[in-house]
Amino acid sequence: MTRLTQRYPFSASHRLHATQLSEEENCRVFGKCNNPHGHGHNYFLEVSVSGEADPVTGLLLQRDQFDSWVEKEILARLSYRNLNEEMEEFQTLVPTTENLAAVVTGALARGWADSFPNGTKLRFDRVRIYETRNNLFEMEAHEIQQ
Amino acid sequence: MTRLTQRYPFSASHRLHATQLSEEENCRVFGKCNNPHGHGHNYFLEVSVSGEADPVTGLLLQRDQFDSWVEKEILARLSYRNLNEEMEEFQTLVPTTENLAAVVTGALARGWADSFPNGTKLRFDRVRIYETRNNLFEMEAHEIQQ
Amino acid sequence: MTRLTQRYPFSASHRLHATQLSEEENCRVFGKCNNPHGHGHNYFLEVSVSGEADPVTGLLLQRDQFDSWVEKEILARLSYRNLNEEMEEFQTLVPTTENLAAVVTGALARGWADSFPNGTKLRFDRVRIYETRNNLFEMEAHEIQQ
Amino acid sequence: MTRLTQRYPFSASHRLHATQLSEEENCRVFGKCNNPHGHGHNYFLEVSVSGEADPVTGLLLQRDQFDSWVEKEILARLSYRNLNEEMEEFQTLVPTTENLAAVVTGALARGWADSFPNGTKLRFDRVRIYETRNNLFEMEAHEIQQ
Amino acid sequence: MTRLTQRYPFSASHRLHATQLSEEENCRVFGKCNNPHGHGHNYFLEVSVSGEADPVTGLLLQRDQFDSWVEKEILARLSYRNLNEEMEEFQTLVPTTENLAAVVTGALARGWADSFPNGTKLRFDRVRIYETRNNLFEMEAHEIQQ
Amino acid sequence: MTRLTQRYPFSASHRLHATQLSEEENCRVFGKCNNPHGHGHNYFLEVSVSGEADPVTGLLLQRDQFDSWVEKEILARLSYRNLNEEMEEFQTLVPTTENLAAVVTGALARGWADSFPNGTKLRFDRVRIYETRNNLFEMEAHEIQQ
Repeated sequence: MTRLTQRYPFSASHRLHATQLSEEENCRVFGKCNNPHGHGHNYFLEVSVSGEADPVTGLLLQRDQFDSWVEKEILARLSYRNLNEEMEEFQTLVPTTENLAAVVTGALARGWADSFPNGTKLRFDRVRIYETRNNLFEMEAHEIQQ
Repeated sequence: MTRLTQRYPFSASHRLHATQLSEEENCRVFGKCNNPHGHGHNYFLEVSVSGEADPVTGLLLQRDQFDSWVEKEILARLSYRNLNEEMEEFQTLVPTTENLAAVVTGALARGWADSFPNGTKLRFDRVRIYETRNNLFEMEAHEIQQ
Repeated sequence: MTRLTQRYPFSASHRLHATQLSEEENCRVFGKCNNPHGHGHNYFLEVSVSGEADPVTGLLLQRDQFDSWVEKEILARLSYRNLNEEMEEFQTLVPTTENLAAVVTGALARGWADSFPNGTKLRFDRVRIYETRNNLFEMEAHEIQQ
Repeated sequence: MTRLTQRYPFSASHRLHATQLSEEENCRVFGKCNNPHGHGHNYFLEVSVSGEADPVTGLLLQRDQFDSWVEKEILARLSYRNLNEEMEEFQTLVPTTENLAAVVTGALARGWADSFPNGTKLRFDRVRIYETRNNLFEMEAHEIQQ
Repeated sequence: MTRLTQRYPFSASHRLHATQLSEEENCRVFGKCNNPHGHGHNYFLEVSVSGEADPVTGLLLQRDQFDSWVEKEILARLSYRNLNEEMEEFQTLVPTTENLAAVVTGALARGWADSFPNGTKLRFDRVRIYETRNNLFEMEAHEIQQ
Repeated sequence: MTRLTQRYPFSASHRLHATQLSEEENCRVFGKCNNPHGHGHNYFLEVSVSGEADPVTGLLLQRDQFDSWVEKEILARLSYRNLNEEMEEFQTLVPTTENLAAVVTGALARGWADSFPNGTKLRFDRVRIYETRNNLFEMEAHEIQQ
C-alpha cells in the first residue's frame, strides 16, 4: 500500500456570516472575517488516495486521471470564485474552511466511482485544506457518506 | 548601510474589471479574474528600508515603529478587505497587483515623514507584493512622488 | 469530524546537557548542542484538535479561544526564552525537542478543560514541533496522562 | 511515545518506461516522463521513527546514528544518481516514486536491525518522498516484510 | 515603473562533464555531479520584466503573453529533458546552472521582440534559476547581446 | 556576469542589551529580546558572489571553495553558538541582526583574498541574513572596508 497526496493551489473569496445569528453575534464570532464585502485566500488543497502500485507500470494511478477527478468534481467550482455567491452548498452553510473541507470531501467522494470505475483497488483517503500557511483543516474521506 | 525587509501577510479579495472596457474585452483581458463575484488571495507584502544601524542599540529602527507605520498607513485598509469595494483608490483603478504595489508604495511614502520624523537618516526603499507563490510585483519607493 | 491544525512560531534558546552524564559523555552524546553557552532555534509549534463543526457557525471552535489556550498554557512560557534557565520542567529534564514536545503536550492537556469547558465535543489530538526545517517531533495527546 | 521525522534532500534522475509495454503504451501512460533521455528531481525523503525518549538524555536516538542509517542504507545509492542505470532494483521495476518509496522503505527496514541493534525499543514507522512540492508518496514501514 | 517576476518550475537532468578536461580533472572539479549516468533537479526559473502598468487595465502585460513567451522560447526545450542530450547549446557548453542561466537569458532575449512587438515599453530585466532550495544563479538581461 | 547566491542555515542564540543604556531603556528598546537569559533563532545566511563562468568548466567557482570560505571565515564561529558570549565582536556591539550582517560581511571580506587568491575575477557582492521567515537584513560587500 502506498499513499499518494497531490497538492492543488486555488484562489477564492468568502465572507463568514451565519444567517441564523444577529449582526452583533456574527461580528463577535467571525471578527474581521464577517466584513460584508468579503476577503480571500490562496488555499492549498491536498488530496490523498492509497492502494497498490500497478506491477507493470509502477503507478498507483494515472496522474491525469487524478487531476481530472479533482478538477471536474471540485476545483472547477472553487478556482477564482466567490464561495458565498457561486457555490450552491454555501447558500445554506457558512463557507468556513471546516465546511469547505466537508464540501470538497463530499464532492470528491461522490465523483469517485465515475472517475475510478469498478475494478480499481484504490481508496480515497483524505482531504486537507490550508487556508493560510498557519492553519490547516483535514477530513478523512470515510467520514463522508458516499 | 544595511537594508531591512519585513514581510507582512494579508488576505483580501478583488475583481479585475476595467470600466473603460466592454464586457467582452474585460473577459478577454482578465479571464477568470474578471469573475463578477471576485476571488481572493493570501498576499505577502515586503517593505524595505535602509540606513545605518544606531551605534548604541545596533538597530536600524525600532521594530514596533516599522510595524506601526505599515499597519497604520496601509495594512489596516487591506487586511480582510475587498479591494474593489473598500479602498478609495480602486474606485478608479483596477486592483491588479501592479496597481496595488503602486498604491501601497504611495501610502507608505506619504506616511513616512510622520512615522520617521526629521533627523532620521533612514530611507524607504522598496515594496514587494507576492500575489501567489509564483508571482511577485515590486516598486522602488523613489518611483513615487512623495 | 474535522481536524484543525494551527501553527505557531516561537524563538527560544537551549543547551543540551544531562546532569547525570560526565562532561565527556555529554560532549559525545550532544556534540555542538552541548556548547555551554547554548544556542537557539525558530521553532514551529503545530497543535491539532478535532471534532464536529458547529452547524450554525460552521466553526470547530473560536480561533481566538484556540490561540488563548495555546498562548496561556505554553507559548507565554516559551517565546523568547532560554528553556534551561526559565522553564521549571527543564530543571530536571534535558530540553531536547523530544522532551519539549512532551512538556508542551502535557501543558496543553492540563489546560484543556479550563479553556474548553464541559459540554464541548472537541478532542485535543496532537502536538508537532519543528526544530528546524529538517526535523520534526510529534506526540499524540492521548500519550499524556491528563 | 514520540515520533521523530527527519528530512533529507537528494537529487536524482529517472526515466519512466515499462519494458512490458509497447512504445505507444509507454508514451500514453507516462507522457513526458517517458522521454528516452530521462529527466530529474530534487526529491525530499522524510523518515519517521518512534519510541520513548531516553530518561537520561531526553533523546529518542542519536541523531548521527539516524543519519548514518539513512545514508548507508539508501541515500548513498540515490544521491546524484540515475535511478534506472544505477540501482539494481530498477532493472526490473519502473522507477516511479511509488516504487521508489517501496525500495527506500525496504532498504531502511532491512538495515534497521544493524543500525539499531537488539535492546532498542524504537520502531521504524514511515517513509515519505516528495517528488515535487506538489506531490508526495508515503509508505508505512510495516507494509514491508522485513 | 513596476517589476513583475514570474516563477516557473521545471524538472530536468544533466551531467557535469567538460570535454576539454581529463577524467581525473572532471572528477575533481565536478565531484558527484560528474557521475556518467547524470542526475536531476526540480529547478525554479524566475523571469523579471519591468515597465509601466497600462492606465486602463492596470496590467504591465498580459499574463498569458508572458507565459507564452517563456514557454515557447525556453521551457518547451527544458521541461522533462536531459540537458546534455537534448539541448543543442549543451553540445559544446557544460550544463552548469551558470551556463543554463546564460542560455535561458539569451533565448528569452532573442524571442523578446517577437513576443512583445514594437510599441511596447516593457523591458526584460533578469533571469534567476534555483538549482536547489539552497543555491540560486542570476543574470541581468542586458548582459546578453540581443 | 552571473551572480551565485548560496544559502546556509545556522542556529545561534543572542540577547539584545546595550551596555550604554539603563535597564529601563534596554527593556523599552528591545522588549522581549532583552530577556537576560537570551533566546535563539534558526538563521539563514545567503552569500552572493559574481563574475564570469569559466569557459571550460562553466563554473563561476568551485562549490567546495565557496563553502570552505564561508565555513572557515564565519560559520564556524556562529553555528550552535551564543553570539554574546562566544563572539569577540559582540563584546562591544549588540548582536542585533543589523550588526550580525555587518560582522559577517566584514569577516567574509577579510577572508576573501585568502580563499580566492589573485587572478580571480570574482567579486564578493552581498550578504543577507534571515532572522525569521518574516525579516531579512542585507548588506552590500562594498560597504565594508576590506
